[in-house]
Amino acid sequence: MRILVIGAGGQVGRTAVEALDGHEVVSASRSSEPSVDITDPSSIERLFASTGQVDAVIVAVGEVPFRPLADLSHADYESAFRGKVLSQLDVVRIGTPYVRDGGSITLTSGILSREPIATGAAASLANGAVESYVHAAATELPRGIRINAVSPSVLEDAPGYHSSFPGFVPVSSHRVGQAFVKSVLGVQTGQVFPVD
Amino acid sequence: MRILVIGAGGQVGRTAVEALDGHEVVSASRSSEPSVDITDPSSIERLFASTGQVDAVIVAVGEVPFRPLADLSHADYESAFRGKVLSQLDVVRIGTPYVRDGGSITLTSGILSREPIATGAAASLANGAVESYVHAAATELPRGIRINAVSPSVLEDAPGYHSSFPGFVPVSSHRVGQAFVKSVLGVQTGQVFPVD
Repeated sequence: MRILVIGAGGQVGRTAVEALDGHEVVSASRSSEPSVDITDPSSIERLFASTGQVDAVIVAVGEVPFRPLADLSHADYESAFRGKVLSQLDVVRIGTPYVRDGGSITLTSGILSREPIATGAAASLANGAVESYVHAAATELPRGIRINAVSPSVLEDAPGYHSSFPGFVPVSSHRVGQAFVKSVLGVQTGQVFPVD
Repeated sequence: MRILVIGAGGQVGRTAVEALDGHEVVSASRSSEPSVDITDPSSIERLFASTGQVDAVIVAVGEVPFRPLADLSHADYESAFRGKVLSQLDVVRIGTPYVRDGGSITLTSGILSREPIATGAAASLANGAVESYVHAAATELPRGIRINAVSPSVLEDAPGYHSSFPGFVPVSSHRVGQAFVKSVLGVQTGQVFPVD
């Protein structure tokens, strides 16, 4: 299977690349070829024009500001939306014609959609938006194309974040990778796969 | 109790106004005094400067585009975010200092966060964003201020929408109004109150 992984160099994207070993994985990221900045629709268009048809697309990027609620500004909420929601939706919008019949698209949300941490309100809203969008978009994608979201807790392999997630039991990269495998190689659509 | 209802003239806002009969309700909307356009932060600032302190704020407005998934553009998703998410979050951000200690803020999402309808992907994302935000914001609001979201299905009193919600059993304005009452007069925070 030919699988485009956007954000392949990141902590979450790497779990997908490793779990899909044996497939033809096209690894895209901001800093390596093919390079893409998914906050720029024209960059997404160039990416798909260069990769051509794929069986599956995985998006494992998304940036959101973390700040105390009282400090989160109008611009911070816009930034969270553009960085993690609109960017992923633009990949769906622009990328769908490049996905083969019966292929799949997998987005990334995160545990903050369902459990809060301090300074995480903008991240929570972004994750919640992605998850509800996936439920809906699945019903309207053409040609049997499926769409799901992987929604992981903090990763064991990202110890720098552990103190921000008190009492959250970090999850293994293996389990996160398997959630991507379930989305890509499985049959479900419109689902959120929590990993926690 | 002194309660500001933004969107008091709309179908959902009216349920809150009627259910809170007996309280001092300040009804704001785009077309009546005090008037407000919550997509404009300066308009929200003027509203709160004119109303002064309140015990509770209810926001029952939010506009999102409905279009087939294939027709939803980058601008449509931005419009959904600005119209129903950022606008309500700006009310929280700007209005919190005007809410008395132990008061409450109630936002409005909707059933499309959890169940899709055709052409509703942008609405779904907006509702999901609001609901996850509420879970998170509740943990960081100051002075015991609570925040919840009311998430109604299609209303009996809005028959023009019924055909867009096949098999959804329309809900009474009374039940929607009571969800607002639960949020304002009850004790819960960080909750989504589904009415379906």
